Amino acid sequence: MKFPRLYQCFNSVEIKRLYSDIQVAARALVYAEHGDPSKVVQLMETDLPPVDSSSVKIKMLASPINPADINTIQGVYPIKPALPTVGGFEGVGEVIEVGGQVTEVKLGDRVIPATNNLGTWRSHIVCPANHVSPLPQDTPVMIGATVRVNACTAYRMLADFVELQPGDCVLQNAANSGAGQAVIQIAAARGLKTINIVRDRPDFDKLKSYLESLGATAVVTEESLKGKDAAKVFKELPRPKLALNAVGGKSTITLIKLMEPGGTIVTYGGMSRQPVLVPTGSLIFNDVKFVGYWMTRWHDKHANSIEANHMITQLCQWGKSGQLRAPNHKLVPLSDFASALDAVLQPFTSQKQILSFDT
Amino acid sequence: MKFPRLYQCFNSVEIKRLYSDIQVAARALVYAEHGDPSKVVQLMETDLPPVDSSSVKIKMLASPINPADINTIQGVYPIKPALPTVGGFEGVGEVIEVGGQVTEVKLGDRVIPATNNLGTWRSHIVCPANHVSPLPQDTPVMIGATVRVNACTAYRMLADFVELQPGDCVLQNAANSGAGQAVIQIAAARGLKTINIVRDRPDFDKLKSYLESLGATAVVTEESLKGKDAAKVFKELPRPKLALNAVGGKSTITLIKLMEPGGTIVTYGGMSRQPVLVPTGSLIFNDVKFVGYWMTRWHDKHANSIEANHMITQLCQWGKSGQLRAPNHKLVPLSDFASALDAVLQPFTSQKQILSFDT
Repeated sequence: MKFPRLYQCFNSVEIKRLYSDIQVAARALVYAEHGDPSKVVQLMETDLPPVDSSSVKIKMLASPINPADINTIQGVYPIKPALPTVGGFEGVGEVIEVGGQVTEVKLGDRVIPATNNLGTWRSHIVCPANHVSPLPQDTPVMIGATVRVNACTAYRMLADFVELQPGDCVLQNAANSGAGQAVIQIAAARGLKTINIVRDRPDFDKLKSYLESLGATAVVTEESLKGKDAAKVFKELPRPKLALNAVGGKSTITLIKLMEPGGTIVTYGGMSRQPVLVPTGSLIFNDVKFVGYWMTRWHDKHANSIEANHMITQLCQWGKSGQLRAPNHKLVPLSDFASALDAVLQPFTSQKQILSFDT
Repeated sequence: MKFPRLYQCFNSVEIKRLYSDIQVAARALVYAEHGDPSKVVQLMETDLPPVDSSSVKIKMLASPINPADINTIQGVYPIKPALPTVGGFEGVGEVIEVGGQVTEVKLGDRVIPATNNLGTWRSHIVCPANHVSPLPQDTPVMIGATVRVNACTAYRMLADFVELQPGDCVLQNAANSGAGQAVIQIAAARGLKTINIVRDRPDFDKLKSYLESLGATAVVTEESLKGKDAAKVFKELPRPKLALNAVGGKSTITLIKLMEPGGTIVTYGGMSRQPVLVPTGSLIFNDVKFVGYWMTRWHDKHANSIEANHMITQLCQWGKSGQLRAPNHKLVPLSDFASALDAVLQPFTSQKQILSFDT
């Protein structure tokens, strides 16, 4: 199979910057302008720069297509990489060459990005060794591939806002999203209960069973909460002190109604594309707090920190023990990237598209 | 002047409870049902219970009509006193009789409520001594009368959410409200800058001058902030880390736009009667935090605490030095209570109605 070579697409100044700054690998998904992802992203064949004393060469194994990747390509995400650039914020690879001065990682290590702009949609990466973090041995590939965005988001939201003790209850909407599934599993591993709101759908019972198999305490639709379901759920569960919101709009009002006064609602997504509606009285009289969470900001502040290592180690350990499963996914060969990009844009997607780099 | 005596209006069980629980005084504004304040509130002549060893008798001097009083009478406030009850959450009085065991206050002290349900709209109160707090000597009467709601609200909102250093900037809407004016003055006393948003009006320049005379750094209308005013204001001022919201609806979006990322918006009122609209991106990417503040909750938790005493002492000191003025107000004889209650319900009210108990 032949790909256009990079110099056929960009002028020499662009190529120089691309090589020196983002160091493209042998086959890479590159975009030079913002727009419809499957139209502007191109698969290219590139040369790899040499591995210097502080660098490593990585053979990528798997890299998901996350909503943030799509929004960045569309130009609507707050991260604006200089173009042209290689797409992809997360993924897992294996170290296949190590510079003489490198102590952080060793040959054969499985690694994930330690920085936010590595450009993971490429078969090989040459980068400074401290731009990646090694995973614990025997971490399953699909856990490694998906740990840095969804699982870390879930982990931090359950850790950083409200002090939760085993038996405490967490409420979330969009419970079927990648992050939502991670929330269910991490909460269960910590002995926390979860009330999980999903959109009504024909196969609701199937989804309910699946989420329960991950450890969900209750799975409900927003509609059913208006009826007797709320009373039934809270007969057995304490009122949540923490709610996680990836929907926005009026959905937040449902969360507020179910929460303990003084609770915190963490917004990390806005699938309804509506602003979050907050009744004034809920702020003043119920003392509900609204905050946001952005994983990218946390990673920026805590790259290579003890906290970051501790979190990754814990998540991978849960991954190895089976307490944390990778999200439902479809492995896609790199050559099928365009249909994978389109698939992410479909509504009611419950399957993560993960690029595979095997030739 | 003759008033209906209390026993003419309520049955004997109600009177007994009224006497034992809320201990009505010689002339009191009482309501027995929720509704339109000027219709349901009645001026009544009552007997005072004897002063026992742990009680004090207070001659009330002045007591404001606050929006929370009105909403409580209407039955739309989260505080629901058992009816019939005496209205009024704050006010200042003078101790005219002291029980033998009382150490907290002495004869001649000026006092304000230490609890939330004292019922201040009455000429005299007999109550346990720890239900009132003494004010520092020579505190102006109108400062004492208004310190517990607006001034305390402003003080706490500037103290409890964001650590502010002299030179830091605070943004607020509804800057002409009682609390808004207190914010301006307390901020100025602490060396903080304030950007004050008010509704556009024919006498805007007059209002601007008045708020500037209180210490406002900038006074602007929401409309003007859409033009060049915002750039002009921020040429000389740092971006605010704290914003105070008493309007809600879309007004919050203006606050978000002007704030520093990571800032906190404290909601303490909702004059627009619209829910607070929060763009999802402002939570996730700008890290803006939305919390609420309710003075009643703080007083409940901190009655007679060192912090409460420290706050009241500091506010009264600013009152004595002229750094904190009482809000624009109209002194109303108790007999004119009905028109005063109606006046509070008028839009664009910028004058606080304060009941006076002189005979």
